[in-house]
Amino acid sequence: MANEVVLLDLKLSPFAARVRIALEEKGIEYKSQVEDLSNKSSTLLKMNPVHQKIPVLIHNGRPICESMVIVQYIDEAWSHKHSLLPSDPYRRAHARFWADYIDKKMYPTGRNLWASEGELKESSKKDLIQCFKILEEELGDKLYFGDESFGYIDLALISFHSFFYTFETLGNWSMVAEFPKLVEWGERCLQKESVSKSLSDQKEVYEVVLQIFKPKLGIE
Amino acid sequence: MANEVVLLDLKLSPFAARVRIALEEKGIEYKSQVEDLSNKSSTLLKMNPVHQKIPVLIHNGRPICESMVIVQYIDEAWSHKHSLLPSDPYRRAHARFWADYIDKKMYPTGRNLWASEGELKESSKKDLIQCFKILEEELGDKLYFGDESFGYIDLALISFHSFFYTFETLGNWSMVAEFPKLVEWGERCLQKESVSKSLSDQKEVYEVVLQIFKPKLGIE
Repeated sequence: MANEVVLLDLKLSPFAARVRIALEEKGIEYKSQVEDLSNKSSTLLKMNPVHQKIPVLIHNGRPICESMVIVQYIDEAWSHKHSLLPSDPYRRAHARFWADYIDKKMYPTGRNLWASEGELKESSKKDLIQCFKILEEELGDKLYFGDESFGYIDLALISFHSFFYTFETLGNWSMVAEFPKLVEWGERCLQKESVSKSLSDQKEVYEVVLQIFKPKLGIE
Repeated sequence: MANEVVLLDLKLSPFAARVRIALEEKGIEYKSQVEDLSNKSSTLLKMNPVHQKIPVLIHNGRPICESMVIVQYIDEAWSHKHSLLPSDPYRRAHARFWADYIDKKMYPTGRNLWASEGELKESSKKDLIQCFKILEEELGDKLYFGDESFGYIDLALISFHSFFYTFETLGNWSMVAEFPKLVEWGERCLQKESVSKSLSDQKEVYEVVLQIFKPKLGIE
């Protein structure tokens, strides 16, 4: 069977970045179809009627939605290539636990740094710093979260690397001073072509966030 | 290796119920260790330091946290027994998508029927009804969400069956009138011993919710 792989995509989305990295890691050729979220395509609405969000992976006409569901699908459907999830059930559970933690904490909390005000903004800043602390501790002295090689947890978290500068600037802390191991880990991941070609520039992300949320941020 | 399986448990928790059902489905003997959430045990704090929540499955001394991560672990660690997830990658992704949908929508939205007031309560009621509509449509005329037999999606959703009466009573709608297929599906699932012995009585859940949230609900 021919493998026709289409990704309903958006350059700056960390969730789409996860899928791009997984596809690159597996060496899968695909067509990126960039969506305009202010005018969603009929393909997007048909392929993801429940959430109407990107990313959607369309594999031989069949849609798969939600970034980490897609990553697991890619890992299982192209299982002859090296695996993103480890094979041992306990280590798999460990990887899924941390990917779930990143999903639940990083974006919802981080987004409040620019999309909310007052108390919620302040409490989100504290929560996000706490989240980075927990991740810095979990990483410890390992090269990657999964240990010796880039894997499932790394993929889940590195997708937010493009937002680290925005987080530290709007939150008024220094990633390199507070979380030096995570910064080193990020640089290590970026040496991989699958990662570097899938992520957006940190300053570009910051400029876009500023542009969209300028009134809320009180920045001229 | 001996299999020592301990579940840090709570009777009324739908998340703990998922784990109980999975353990029963696999025929795994385990010890239920009921937690008092107002006075968390040192075991819970040690085994789940990140979230400090139940359920936690402790398998030969090693903890696994987060209900659907635990269910997948059980499915993989006891893989010689019948599988909860299908084997085909696309069907696995489909199952994970719907379990994720249930996780993101059902409890956070449902809880607002008794734990919030005003606009948030009203919008949550609408969201929860929409969630049930989408699930009723996804079930369609199938016996189970996975098709012919009880599986991963069924397990993710049936754990909330104990809350259906509370939802419809506080939200002022009739499950049987609005979502007859889901009601029939629930009764079908309850015929399985793994399910019936793991779930709490619907009226008991309602009484507990009333007791805790009486002032907020404006009920004397």
